[in-house]
Amino acid sequence: MQIANLLIACPDTKGLVHTITGFLYQNNANLVTIEQHIEDDMFFMRVEWDIADFKIRPEDFIRKIQPIQKKFSMNLNVDFNNRKKRLGLFCSKDPYCLMDILVRQQTGELNVEIPFVISNFEDCRSYVENLGIPFFFIATKEGLNFEHEAEQLEIIKKHPTDLLALARYMKVLSAEFIRKTGQKIINVHHSFLPSFVGARPYDEAYERGVKLIGATSHYVTPELDQGPIIEQTTRRIHHAHKVENLKTMGRESEKEVFAFAIKKHVRNKIIVYKNRTIVFA
Amino acid sequence: MQIANLLIACPDTKGLVHTITGFLYQNNANLVTIEQHIEDDMFFMRVEWDIADFKIRPEDFIRKIQPIQKKFSMNLNVDFNNRKKRLGLFCSKDPYCLMDILVRQQTGELNVEIPFVISNFEDCRSYVENLGIPFFFIATKEGLNFEHEAEQLEIIKKHPTDLLALARYMKVLSAEFIRKTGQKIINVHHSFLPSFVGARPYDEAYERGVKLIGATSHYVTPELDQGPIIEQTTRRIHHAHKVENLKTMGRESEKEVFAFAIKKHVRNKIIVYKNRTIVFA
Amino acid sequence: MQIANLLIACPDTKGLVHTITGFLYQNNANLVTIEQHIEDDMFFMRVEWDIADFKIRPEDFIRKIQPIQKKFSMNLNVDFNNRKKRLGLFCSKDPYCLMDILVRQQTGELNVEIPFVISNFEDCRSYVENLGIPFFFIATKEGLNFEHEAEQLEIIKKHPTDLLALARYMKVLSAEFIRKTGQKIINVHHSFLPSFVGARPYDEAYERGVKLIGATSHYVTPELDQGPIIEQTTRRIHHAHKVENLKTMGRESEKEVFAFAIKKHVRNKIIVYKNRTIVFA
Amino acid sequence: MQIANLLIACPDTKGLVHTITGFLYQNNANLVTIEQHIEDDMFFMRVEWDIADFKIRPEDFIRKIQPIQKKFSMNLNVDFNNRKKRLGLFCSKDPYCLMDILVRQQTGELNVEIPFVISNFEDCRSYVENLGIPFFFIATKEGLNFEHEAEQLEIIKKHPTDLLALARYMKVLSAEFIRKTGQKIINVHHSFLPSFVGARPYDEAYERGVKLIGATSHYVTPELDQGPIIEQTTRRIHHAHKVENLKTMGRESEKEVFAFAIKKHVRNKIIVYKNRTIVFA
Repeated sequence: MQIANLLIACPDTKGLVHTITGFLYQNNANLVTIEQHIEDDMFFMRVEWDIADFKIRPEDFIRKIQPIQKKFSMNLNVDFNNRKKRLGLFCSKDPYCLMDILVRQQTGELNVEIPFVISNFEDCRSYVENLGIPFFFIATKEGLNFEHEAEQLEIIKKHPTDLLALARYMKVLSAEFIRKTGQKIINVHHSFLPSFVGARPYDEAYERGVKLIGATSHYVTPELDQGPIIEQTTRRIHHAHKVENLKTMGRESEKEVFAFAIKKHVRNKIIVYKNRTIVFA
Repeated sequence: MQIANLLIACPDTKGLVHTITGFLYQNNANLVTIEQHIEDDMFFMRVEWDIADFKIRPEDFIRKIQPIQKKFSMNLNVDFNNRKKRLGLFCSKDPYCLMDILVRQQTGELNVEIPFVISNFEDCRSYVENLGIPFFFIATKEGLNFEHEAEQLEIIKKHPTDLLALARYMKVLSAEFIRKTGQKIINVHHSFLPSFVGARPYDEAYERGVKLIGATSHYVTPELDQGPIIEQTTRRIHHAHKVENLKTMGRESEKEVFAFAIKKHVRNKIIVYKNRTIVFA
Repeated sequence: MQIANLLIACPDTKGLVHTITGFLYQNNANLVTIEQHIEDDMFFMRVEWDIADFKIRPEDFIRKIQPIQKKFSMNLNVDFNNRKKRLGLFCSKDPYCLMDILVRQQTGELNVEIPFVISNFEDCRSYVENLGIPFFFIATKEGLNFEHEAEQLEIIKKHPTDLLALARYMKVLSAEFIRKTGQKIINVHHSFLPSFVGARPYDEAYERGVKLIGATSHYVTPELDQGPIIEQTTRRIHHAHKVENLKTMGRESEKEVFAFAIKKHVRNKIIVYKNRTIVFA
Repeated sequence: MQIANLLIACPDTKGLVHTITGFLYQNNANLVTIEQHIEDDMFFMRVEWDIADFKIRPEDFIRKIQPIQKKFSMNLNVDFNNRKKRLGLFCSKDPYCLMDILVRQQTGELNVEIPFVISNFEDCRSYVENLGIPFFFIATKEGLNFEHEAEQLEIIKKHPTDLLALARYMKVLSAEFIRKTGQKIINVHHSFLPSFVGARPYDEAYERGVKLIGATSHYVTPELDQGPIIEQTTRRIHHAHKVENLKTMGRESEKEVFAFAIKKHVRNKIIVYKNRTIVFA
């Protein structure tokens, strides 16, 4: 069974579900799942269908649905799953989020190709190269210095990707870099946002005396740690736990929300609306 | 905004969503949410619509949708929310699940009427009567004795209900009683089923040394603790906790899953299929 | 079995556990539990013992332990559990946290006396008086106006309490009031602090698009929502949930962390250190 | 700071904590943590101390503490952390639990040596050998056939270990094998025990319609899936999840409880009593 999926966002009006399912039905689609969400006056929908008997070829789909798209001012995102998505990874010193993704890819759980890992430290090189994945070291300078980004963009140009993900990459991205990549960038932040933005969340969580520590995966926007949240989770801590323990325990949450976000994105299950995410099941 | 909802279960076939939304759309319904689920070759759907401009009167709905119903062999359950549901409660000695529901009802969180509480103990009488709710004591005998059920059925007949719920009622119901009530019965079991069926789950959980204790709400069937599960949750325990601690901690889970199940049922959000439940959002 | 307990905080040094257990041992105490925590250079300990054969009478305990207390500069808090603690409650319009505590007290789960409920609204009066508990309405004015506090302090003076708890009391307390009560005050805040301080946490959580909502119980300090956190918990939310849903779901967390905090305090299990809490098991 | 730790189990009697801390105190130990647990009439304790000024050499410890040990019939387990523990791993086809442990070891999170991986399938060979760890394939026959165990014991004899762990090794161990290894064996089971013992827990969980799926790490005993539970966790599932989804989601729990159990064991933090575990913080 080969499955296509379609994400739709448009102003809400009567007859939308009827029109869309009618279009698919008349072209012999076998609906597998349909999810719909209404917010403010906007309509969001994700539909999956079996393409065994589907009368429209992938390359003709956008053209064929165009009358409907225009009539309802639809924002469409269709995926026929005919190509593995390509995921570029960034990291710094900490290997655990990076390795977690690499292992999930290697063992077949995460259905992507990983053309490169870019890092501003050498610490993770051997882990990455052992798995046969190219590792590029690109030094970064302290503070709001973005000279290194030209070199990073060069690599992305040579090894095109569909999605970038920051596996504990501890360097702010410039607004220009984000724009120039022309694709979504997923970050994992080591706190339950909006608490504890910035570089020392576990220290701050300890000092504030919270009873749960969390982690957050989100899309990167130019404002640090302010992008649309994709997933969060928390774990219970205890007064006996020092900052070091919080870091070790927090890793479990970081790995989980990071992998979750990448999977959902790769499966075309996320719509961003008003700095929030609609994440379909 | 007044909302109607419709639950549908039928064999899956092409064009179902299109047909149903078409029927509603042509009668001027404003769709609010639509949820759909496919399993084996069965199709399940719940749809909510604003009835402000809806052209079909509640009393005509079943007749008007009949051609579609027949064509697709649909099992339908429609609710125009034009009447408060009536919930009958059973309890034994422990007041906490019972009181939790009564307080939720009294403070407006749970949108039901509670015509009576039936108990085989006197312990909860004053709590119930303080809130102005009739309390009926009906003694039960030990073992598989169901003589008392005639009297219980008499009360249900005099004070008709849409749903019964067992708030820690520690007496097995006969298959005959379940059938004669002619309505769903929700039970809360003080373990994470299927572990620890029967009357001593906290003792057994302690003896087995589990690290989480749970609670389960489910529909009652003639087989003890085997009915379709509606909701479950767990809480972490510690080796220092004795059976008494498990009981106190477990109450939090019991109250939560019990109230959840009653709310979901009252809002017409549950379909039972093959001893499992589909619980819409 | 009657159990006494002792909380100790003092600078850490060699031999502390040995000295304390020696003192208890020599006076025929049967140790039931001992918990200890070291942080910075401070030592914290809680010990419970069976007083069946204990040679020191409650009224002599402080005098007898004084040599040790002085030698190690100990801060001591002993409780022979010979008197029910008295809990004074404050509320505003929302009844659910208040009712949760009242029901727990009424059904014996929470071992306290409740001499009064003070409120700046009349909404909860009947719930409270139905349970036979005095309800005092004291109006409050908008903004940083604390005129009403004199009247509140008068009630606390007439009906002395060991602990005050704010069951969704939506009015800031003045530093002077906090000091004059001469006792701990527990508050429940309807967010996962430090996120979303202030009066509209569920609205802000919705706008930020978080994937979990939480609640926090903490001791009140003059700085709003900045006091030492006692307990927190979170619940998963979904993009389909509106602010109203978050409020309903959040209640479950609020009730849970509020009751937890009151129970732990009443059992003499909390030490505050550096705006954090050590909460013994 | 170098830390030693001591686990104690003995019949409870007055003066135990005093005696033990006295012995350590007189030998100049600086206590770091002390945890104690009493159950039935048994006393359990774990104490950590800084050995900077400790007057007793590791090799003399057991001899020096012997008078106390004999007096109180103590079961002792001391660890001076002067040698890395050696962990032998078993796996079958599924690589994820295995890889999770190997990555944690490789990146320094798990402080062990891994002398070998034994498997009854070839599937994981390249993953393991890529990390420079010896991989031994030993075929197993269907049913209650244990011929292959002699060869496995040979490997353990040649490459001695302190602990064995079964990373989704899908073959029952004979009672004789368990005894002959002379060490603890940790297993991860892919359900929330005692529910769903055996080989198909995700299928059975799906059929029963549970709302949470879990995983369990436990010590191996001759009775399948009946050994003392070390850790459990659960994750929420949804009616839309098929068995395949449960398997993928369950992996997160499996990895977490398996790594937790190995870490706790390696740090000498677990005591088994009556088929339950006391797991210190």
